[in-house]
Amino acid sequence: MQCPIKLTILGSSSALPTSERYPSAHVLNVHERFFLIDCGEGTQMQMRRYKIRFSRINHIFISHLHGDHIFGLYGLLSSFSLMGRKSNINLYAPSGYGSILASHLADFDIKLGFDINFVPLSGKEPVTILDDKYLSVTAFPLVHRVPSFGFLFREKTQDRNILKESIEKFNIPPVRIPAIKKGADFITEEGNIIKNEDITTLPREPLSYAYCSDTKYFRRLSSFVKGVTLLYHEATFDKSKQELADMTCHSTTFDAARIAMEAGAGKLVIGHFSARYKDISHLVNESRSIFPNTVPAIDGRSYNVDGIDDI
Amino acid sequence: MQCPIKLTILGSSSALPTSERYPSAHVLNVHERFFLIDCGEGTQMQMRRYKIRFSRINHIFISHLHGDHIFGLYGLLSSFSLMGRKSNINLYAPSGYGSILASHLADFDIKLGFDINFVPLSGKEPVTILDDKYLSVTAFPLVHRVPSFGFLFREKTQDRNILKESIEKFNIPPVRIPAIKKGADFITEEGNIIKNEDITTLPREPLSYAYCSDTKYFRRLSSFVKGVTLLYHEATFDKSKQELADMTCHSTTFDAARIAMEAGAGKLVIGHFSARYKDISHLVNESRSIFPNTVPAIDGRSYNVDGIDDI
Repeated sequence: MQCPIKLTILGSSSALPTSERYPSAHVLNVHERFFLIDCGEGTQMQMRRYKIRFSRINHIFISHLHGDHIFGLYGLLSSFSLMGRKSNINLYAPSGYGSILASHLADFDIKLGFDINFVPLSGKEPVTILDDKYLSVTAFPLVHRVPSFGFLFREKTQDRNILKESIEKFNIPPVRIPAIKKGADFITEEGNIIKNEDITTLPREPLSYAYCSDTKYFRRLSSFVKGVTLLYHEATFDKSKQELADMTCHSTTFDAARIAMEAGAGKLVIGHFSARYKDISHLVNESRSIFPNTVPAIDGRSYNVDGIDDI
Repeated sequence: MQCPIKLTILGSSSALPTSERYPSAHVLNVHERFFLIDCGEGTQMQMRRYKIRFSRINHIFISHLHGDHIFGLYGLLSSFSLMGRKSNINLYAPSGYGSILASHLADFDIKLGFDINFVPLSGKEPVTILDDKYLSVTAFPLVHRVPSFGFLFREKTQDRNILKESIEKFNIPPVRIPAIKKGADFITEEGNIIKNEDITTLPREPLSYAYCSDTKYFRRLSSFVKGVTLLYHEATFDKSKQELADMTCHSTTFDAARIAMEAGAGKLVIGHFSARYKDISHLVNESRSIFPNTVPAIDGRSYNVDGIDDI
């Protein structure tokens, strides 16, 4: 079965991009709904390069107001408009950004053809910022030089799977199936009660994805992303640069791996690499020494959120 | 002889970039001094891709305040600073941009480690904005939806070339050579006057480069760029879109070619192509039907400003 949630990395660099590593931007495909997480400079060109359709993006999440996470947003919004977009964009970003955005659009003569539904982020506790039938998204605080937020995307518990042979055996009419998938027993025309567990199997475990960038290590972070299936965590520096990481409120490979381990994550993707590392293989190895199931974020690469058979 | 002025295109798209064509940005190498002209989103990544050294850029010229000409500037300035730059940047941009930039840097927590010497552009007449021993730069008004300026880079008249055999023949001491190159006669120890034209040859013609983007056609424009060696002129649309071009204050291939012809330009580079044109060959052909010496702007390609043997 295809994994129903996929992550595509559009940018894996930290503040200084290279021609190979663009600034931060992730696209999460959840059952063919697309969520853009951070929007560094060049995101729209990367979206074109990696065939992400602009019209599929309805929600944009901005972790914090540093340029390498947001300087692609103006161009992207502007392009949306030039392409004739009419439908709203839901924009989740640190509070205060609403007025910055408004004055920016005015400064550059940008008249958007659609509305922005701005959801301000603030506070020191996790908050659910999106919740529907299939998915919930929680924003949680990180520790950085400016207010910074991580995001946890969690599938809702899936319906139970009804066994095909039971449908035939008990002649279950289609109208009854939704309730059975939710856990109801089936009562036959003769009044016999067929137990739910006899005609269904357990649903698969809900998948989840957490985005943690930028932040220094703090123990509580692992509680925010407890049991996440796929964790993305920044690892700007190798372990020899722990002091620099602490000073700049960033993480090392060890910090990222510790959070993954403490959270019991299924798999860890590290990224937001400092431009000083031409080759990132030792960063991956360092992280693996603590959390073996680590892979690097690479521009243009996609990852199954169930951690199986990356694309 | 290598051409002493070279143009490198970093972006040739109009407002909607593609993965092949980035938004407007040109680098002009004048005797190994590098000038950045416009700075669309992704310029810093293109500079890395095409090996333009960041430290060589000391002057940045912004034609107008539309995103596809400036949204790369914040990231570039920020990267300059992260790379430890201390030397000033001379920034030439439409008046009003100084305060926009200041509030933007504050909004995004950017503290630059260098000063910006801001030169505001305004008015309806050409103005010399840079003038030194080797080069002058003139800003001239264009006609667009917002105040917009073109730039003309012109080499100063070169010194005359002294003939090597004359130096030997008349035993000319090195101390006298600079004056002779400027046109002085040489007086021998015996008091004989050797005419300048007998010991020197004419210098080569000064080269020049003009950048015209974004603008609609207006006749006076050709007078601003009269006799330019290499003209870059936007050609957002093909000739069938003349009405759209007029309405949006852009140029067609015909408009660009007419300016080149009327100005007596040596060569024309057209660019700023609408994303609707996947293949731009018919745009080039249209322009060539009026001005044969037309070539297209292509991301990453370099052009000799003397028009000979493009790189």
